[in-house]
Amino acid sequence: MATDVSFLTKNSEDFYNAIESRRSIYGISKDSLISEERLLEVINKAVKYTPSSFNAQSSRVVVLIGQQHNKLWDITETALRRVVPAENFSETQQKMDAFRRGYGTVLFYEDENVIKGLQQKFALYADNFPVWSNQSSGMLQYVVWTSLELEGFGASLQHYNPLIDEDVRKQWNIPGNWKLIAEMPFGKPTAPAAEKDFIPLEERVKIFK
Amino acid sequence: MATDVSFLTKNSEDFYNAIESRRSIYGISKDSLISEERLLEVINKAVKYTPSSFNAQSSRVVVLIGQQHNKLWDITETALRRVVPAENFSETQQKMDAFRRGYGTVLFYEDENVIKGLQQKFALYADNFPVWSNQSSGMLQYVVWTSLELEGFGASLQHYNPLIDEDVRKQWNIPGNWKLIAEMPFGKPTAPAAEKDFIPLEERVKIFK
Repeated sequence: MATDVSFLTKNSEDFYNAIESRRSIYGISKDSLISEERLLEVINKAVKYTPSSFNAQSSRVVVLIGQQHNKLWDITETALRRVVPAENFSETQQKMDAFRRGYGTVLFYEDENVIKGLQQKFALYADNFPVWSNQSSGMLQYVVWTSLELEGFGASLQHYNPLIDEDVRKQWNIPGNWKLIAEMPFGKPTAPAAEKDFIPLEERVKIFK
Repeated sequence: MATDVSFLTKNSEDFYNAIESRRSIYGISKDSLISEERLLEVINKAVKYTPSSFNAQSSRVVVLIGQQHNKLWDITETALRRVVPAENFSETQQKMDAFRRGYGTVLFYEDENVIKGLQQKFALYADNFPVWSNQSSGMLQYVVWTSLELEGFGASLQHYNPLIDEDVRKQWNIPGNWKLIAEMPFGKPTAPAAEKDFIPLEERVKIFK
């Protein structure tokens, strides 16, 4: 049978380069590299095409730029001051300052109403939907991260949830059914990524044929 | 300050094409499209460069091709016959036959010893490590899926775990601390993906500036 596979992209090397180039970039600045329209286009594309089990599309995203981005890291710093002893705060302070120096932050959420709906509809898999929701959120975090870096930004993935959830919800009027999963500050890179260690692949991958 | 950002790939359009082209492909055949060496290279690249929180590198992968791939779907079919009533089995049978017609399957695991080790070392985040492990596994599933499709294969993501875990463990002598997360059958595409519905992006993405 003749099969049309022309719908598949074939430029695999660029994809592999993108995979390898994506790193955690902590040195970031406020310089704008692309228009807000382009930024939103890139993020929309990631949200639209990243898959989810049962095509649940439970992932939600909030993009904060400019003063809104600064406000997020003010909120996070205030929340951390409540739990980190003052005498140990200098390292945390430096992190907050570094993130605040960035251009924007992407907040990743999952819509718990969607997950509950699936749990009611498919009771047999009820325990699995929150797990698959996390896996799908991870996929989206990855696609946004890689996309931002392809656009020239540096980004990293942070987890100050659930500490900041309520303050963030109030500040931007986030729906009560959106659960915060991760925060991704980004900006123009001002320093390369740190060295990274790798476990030997022979310990991680097995093939049977 | 002058900043060298040349380490970042800039061919973003190919990446976005890859994102958009990656779909669930159920019609697959046993035709080999690339060498086993190339297949392993592509999967190794995905495993190596996909990130994990605390650089935990907890993801593990088992690749089954040829008769080993067939064996997996025999095992899965046998396990399903124990739980699906015989009079309802024809749809399940068709699925098993379709997967078995493929070239190979990638099994995604997470190493629970790595996760437990992090929980002991960083007790404050103990509840988070299994969640982050799922998110990281999702990232890897996504990268392998997209990579396979860029190499010309069609693939889909299945979840017959935990039903098949013990039989699979015995068959391929999988370490007891590897937890099965997902199964990805793949092969040469013989039919395009089905239509897909999308929720309006305005309901999923918010921007504040």
